[in-house]
Amino acid sequence: MPQTQPKRADAQRSIAAILEAATESLSRNPDASVSEIAKAAGVGRVTLYGHFPNRADLVDAALAHAIENGHAALDAVDLSGDPRQALARLIDSSWHLVDRFRSLLQAAQSVLPPGRIRALHAGPAERVQGLIERGQAEGVFRSDLPVSWLVGSMHSVMHSAADEINAGRVATGEAADFITATVLAAFTPPGRPVPALTELRQSQP
Amino acid sequence: MPQTQPKRADAQRSIAAILEAATESLSRNPDASVSEIAKAAGVGRVTLYGHFPNRADLVDAALAHAIENGHAALDAVDLSGDPRQALARLIDSSWHLVDRFRSLLQAAQSVLPPGRIRALHAGPAERVQGLIERGQAEGVFRSDLPVSWLVGSMHSVMHSAADEINAGRVATGEAADFITATVLAAFTPPGRPVPALTELRQSQP
Repeated sequence: MPQTQPKRADAQRSIAAILEAATESLSRNPDASVSEIAKAAGVGRVTLYGHFPNRADLVDAALAHAIENGHAALDAVDLSGDPRQALARLIDSSWHLVDRFRSLLQAAQSVLPPGRIRALHAGPAERVQGLIERGQAEGVFRSDLPVSWLVGSMHSVMHSAADEINAGRVATGEAADFITATVLAAFTPPGRPVPALTELRQSQP
Repeated sequence: MPQTQPKRADAQRSIAAILEAATESLSRNPDASVSEIAKAAGVGRVTLYGHFPNRADLVDAALAHAIENGHAALDAVDLSGDPRQALARLIDSSWHLVDRFRSLLQAAQSVLPPGRIRALHAGPAERVQGLIERGQAEGVFRSDLPVSWLVGSMHSVMHSAADEINAGRVATGEAADFITATVLAAFTPPGRPVPALTELRQSQP
């Protein structure tokens, strides 16, 4: 029994090193190979394949890892006050992460189905959901569409922004404004005016 | 020279039969195999691989084929009158096609990058672009965001609806209303009220 302890600790260290290396490598190059990632992690390919049987498993784990860290970082976003301004702040910070991991997302999109990518975003989605529900209760977000639909629309507009940048149609610096303007308009209740971006950002530092 | 004519005609017939079979098979099962498609087309696997070297090429060609036919069918949509009502009609008809080919889209999403799927929609995107530009000129669609961004947002919300149905979160019958409500709100100029779905559909049969 005591002999297995070091092995388990070794395995955990290997997994942690592989995840860090995969996240880092795929964030620079969406086509980073398993061999490159093993090398960057300082482990052999056999060790890597022992933990992640194929490249899709590795990409899945790297995206999950990046989302988990990003989700924790988003704890710092102030979600109080006007739900529209809070959502604008959350979109800004979330987009910063999506943009940083844009290449990793691209890697994921080529090996994982959209449903799996959405499922990996369960944590961030739950945070958005809570804010939408508060906005609905306060009458500033529409209640005629299901919350899950609104969460999904925001997810797809953000990821579409990453695709637009990859395609050269949008500049990185423009994306946060475009996403915020689009999502906040989409969330506005019928009959109510669409907020201007200046209103959404007025209380921000 | 004359001897090659029949061969070319044969090859064209084979390609047409393969495309029909691929579109049909993948629209029933996103995981339809190359062998199944060859069998449904009445050609050998070697013939099929001669035209489409790998499954991704075949899925790409099948999606292009379905979009081309769908794009032609959308010629029947009346795009005159209020651009918002015209867009609501175009979304209804376009969604009908996306929903019909939902399984083929799912197959495409697992082998083609989002940029390629977007590129295959160039024809439909151009039609949407023309309508958005008219709506911008008439002041009913926002001009503070680029047309290409608005086209991309509509594309991503429609495809997200397909993902939501695949995930069991949205019923097929609900999707057209959800997409129309979301897209028309997103396209509303800041300061202007979001149109109600009843307004958008009032002039429809």
